[in-house]
Amino acid sequence: MATGKNGETAINMPETKASVKGTAPLLNSSKAVSTVEHPNRGVKKGFAIGDFVLRLCALGAALGATVAMGNADQVLPFFTQFLQFEAQYDDFDTFRFFVMAMGMVSGYLFISLPFSIIGIIRPFATKPRLFLMMAALTIAAGSASASMVYLAHNGNDDVNWLPFCQQFGDFCQSASGAVIGSLLAAALLLVIIILSAFALNRN
Amino acid sequence: MATGKNGETAINMPETKASVKGTAPLLNSSKAVSTVEHPNRGVKKGFAIGDFVLRLCALGAALGATVAMGNADQVLPFFTQFLQFEAQYDDFDTFRFFVMAMGMVSGYLFISLPFSIIGIIRPFATKPRLFLMMAALTIAAGSASASMVYLAHNGNDDVNWLPFCQQFGDFCQSASGAVIGSLLAAALLLVIIILSAFALNRN
Repeated sequence: MATGKNGETAINMPETKASVKGTAPLLNSSKAVSTVEHPNRGVKKGFAIGDFVLRLCALGAALGATVAMGNADQVLPFFTQFLQFEAQYDDFDTFRFFVMAMGMVSGYLFISLPFSIIGIIRPFATKPRLFLMMAALTIAAGSASASMVYLAHNGNDDVNWLPFCQQFGDFCQSASGAVIGSLLAAALLLVIIILSAFALNRN
Repeated sequence: MATGKNGETAINMPETKASVKGTAPLLNSSKAVSTVEHPNRGVKKGFAIGDFVLRLCALGAALGATVAMGNADQVLPFFTQFLQFEAQYDDFDTFRFFVMAMGMVSGYLFISLPFSIIGIIRPFATKPRLFLMMAALTIAAGSASASMVYLAHNGNDDVNWLPFCQQFGDFCQSASGAVIGSLLAAALLLVIIILSAFALNRN
């Protein structure tokens, strides 16, 4: 038993030495992992604040575009017994899609604002997957309506589609403003996506 | 010397045992570091191959859309002394934009293919920033042309724009096909972007 214990202590001596040798790389590796998990918080906070401001701007542009298009309505001051000359967004299916799409984008941006505020207080990188879909929707609505507004301004002689902006000037102006607003919102959404990609890269 | 050697071997015996015990955490820590710095190559290779296949499909869709729209041309079999009834993509500014935009996207996708092949051989995560712009361009061209094709099919009674697809059926079919191709390309580009976001997250 005594010799057995002596043998054990003789074995233990180098074992502690080896464990001291072993801890050096262990500490190093844990430090390396911690720097990967907790990056520079100041830069992240800057990203989060920029994200919030951009979302606010995009919400303003999207909401403005929705309201401008939704209220685009003009009644001409002359009418016959049977018909009244009126133009409103409802007459164009493209503009109706525009109002629906931009309303959806506005709603999503509004809902996402609290999350952006949380992101400022406690920085975390958000994955911009839903933002990508919203940006796609905004670009689709904006460019489809842009082609309609272009047609309303210039018409198309080849297929005898006459422009009507000379008659319905106010309506066309509202629609053009809405299209510009939506394209601005689309650009802001793309910037937000690129910004979150930067923030994710810094993870 | 003989006893010394014997003592050394006696000491060495537990030392090797201890080093086996000591290496267990050492190996673990080095493995932990390597997973952070050099992630799973197989998964990355899978992402890269998926990326290449998707790019190839997107290129096919974009190129097909460009060619279909560019060749959309129909001459009606009757004509008067002064005019011939012909429809081609050049008559519509939106369709002209469509051909230019989709040509650009096709060219970019073609140029990006070799980089995707390099990505398969030597996996690296690509940043999908330019792809985002290409996807935006594709969506814009596709949706603007979609609204025109819709108008060509259905017309708009409120502003007296008559549909012309009954007369120019072949032209409308080519244009519709081109629009579907471009929207397919847009969807594929969005999938590529989401895939690269996944690949970047795994970095």
